[in-house]
Amino acid sequence: MSWPRKVKIVEVGARDGLQNESTEVPAAIKIELIERLAAAGLAAVEAGAFVSPKKVPQMAGSKEVFQGLERRPGTAYPALVPNMKGFEAALEAGVTEIAVFVSASEGFSQHNIGCSRAESLERLRDVASAAAGRNILMRGYVSCIAGCPYDGTVAQDEVAAMAEALIALGCYEISLGDTIGVGTADQIRNLIKRVSARIPREKLAMHFHDTYGQGVANVLASLDEGISVFDSSVAGLGGCPFAPGASGNVATEDVVYLLQGLGIKTGIDLMAVAKTGNWISRHLGRPNAARAGKALLAARQEGDAHGG
Amino acid sequence: MSWPRKVKIVEVGARDGLQNESTEVPAAIKIELIERLAAAGLAAVEAGAFVSPKKVPQMAGSKEVFQGLERRPGTAYPALVPNMKGFEAALEAGVTEIAVFVSASEGFSQHNIGCSRAESLERLRDVASAAAGRNILMRGYVSCIAGCPYDGTVAQDEVAAMAEALIALGCYEISLGDTIGVGTADQIRNLIKRVSARIPREKLAMHFHDTYGQGVANVLASLDEGISVFDSSVAGLGGCPFAPGASGNVATEDVVYLLQGLGIKTGIDLMAVAKTGNWISRHLGRPNAARAGKALLAARQEGDAHGG
Repeated sequence: MSWPRKVKIVEVGARDGLQNESTEVPAAIKIELIERLAAAGLAAVEAGAFVSPKKVPQMAGSKEVFQGLERRPGTAYPALVPNMKGFEAALEAGVTEIAVFVSASEGFSQHNIGCSRAESLERLRDVASAAAGRNILMRGYVSCIAGCPYDGTVAQDEVAAMAEALIALGCYEISLGDTIGVGTADQIRNLIKRVSARIPREKLAMHFHDTYGQGVANVLASLDEGISVFDSSVAGLGGCPFAPGASGNVATEDVVYLLQGLGIKTGIDLMAVAKTGNWISRHLGRPNAARAGKALLAARQEGDAHGG
Repeated sequence: MSWPRKVKIVEVGARDGLQNESTEVPAAIKIELIERLAAAGLAAVEAGAFVSPKKVPQMAGSKEVFQGLERRPGTAYPALVPNMKGFEAALEAGVTEIAVFVSASEGFSQHNIGCSRAESLERLRDVASAAAGRNILMRGYVSCIAGCPYDGTVAQDEVAAMAEALIALGCYEISLGDTIGVGTADQIRNLIKRVSARIPREKLAMHFHDTYGQGVANVLASLDEGISVFDSSVAGLGGCPFAPGASGNVATEDVVYLLQGLGIKTGIDLMAVAKTGNWISRHLGRPNAARAGKALLAARQEGDAHGG
């Protein structure tokens, strides 16, 4: 299978990334982050979540973020919503695209959202029909596609079944997430083959975490399988609650560097993303985990110092 | 092309890694590092360099390291030697395998070793014949295979020509090094195709730096091309003199995690390498750059804390 000519990146740093950072981030910084990423050419920038502020304190200011955000025409700003309460809050804040979430593993569903996978799909039925009624686009996440911190192995058919159920609910695209970052290239290729037997590849996105250093390699493996949408996080923001201190989402900078090297179009200004990654890392007081971002900025500084 | 069943890792942390670290490391720590890596199953552990102590102060204690080292039968402990002076010092220290070095680009050769590529090969002629005369194994490095900090692009035929010249000098294996870490998967695949038209793949090793986050993906691309020997560095030790603050060699832990996931044998105890990586990172006062290493140790600690 040949690589796609063009790849779309869904930037998830301001939601999936920040959600797993311990430093509290004011709404104004989140807004600046989102606006800078959109200006850098990211066509989709996940901008918040309407979830319990007790469970996910980092997302508590999502209403303020959406209300303060200057939106670019053509850019999508999805928000995660878990239920009707979240959906209504999102609508009120002016959200026009939502993301919903289920787990491929029973254990993670029970521990993370306190209900079975079947119940989680049932709960989303109202959200899905309300979204359809208001022409709100809906994207679906399936988590734990390559392994679960509670159940261990996750059967690929279970991943396919949950993805299919989200398509049936009306999701236009399914993002398959290796939540704990354990997957390696061959497993990912096989999973894509398995899921795409039931859902067209054009409706699949891949979402990798760099926990075990496999993020970029798994993007490459997915490109080999014809996937053309990837979720990633500026500066590799985020972490892993199941491996404290471990790496977060695969870094947008590292993924875009790969894509540019392969001659695949992204429409993204890599240097602008790299600068944004350095800026938000400084704000959070954490090292910049985007290796391409660090190297591009360091090489440029070095060039400047030598008059180059 | 199908993947190799078995892969050999050449651990370069104690030489290529440490050489680019600013913290001075006493010989006793280097010896412990090398012995721990060999005990973890690394079949080749680069253990030092007999080079100018002015130019590379970090390698000044290599004689002491080799004399203090307890060697495991079957493990190789190569040392880098640039010329006859280095060769003689290496012999005196008890070295039984050497590595020699040339650049694929003219600019890097001039700046790094102060002579042309042709002269660098000429200088190695004496070393090669002395090594052959004493049954000292010789491995060759070609640097800047995917780009040069001075010349920019490097023609793949020039890489092939330098590799062929090293084979002609008697090297049993050529390690192709992306010294500044700029290469991406497709370029690497094409390079291997080009070089292996002139040298059997079994004699090629790949040596990646993670400067732009492409190390593990480039290992994957090389496996797709049938390469079965890789250089890597525990804890991702090292850096890039051309991008200060950037990442170093691809981490042994991340590469071994990939290989295990693909079902490829390495003979390496990954947890032992991960612990060694944490230990040497603490000693150097730098963050552990091996993501798989950090995650494995963190997940285990988390498990311990929960009685798991």
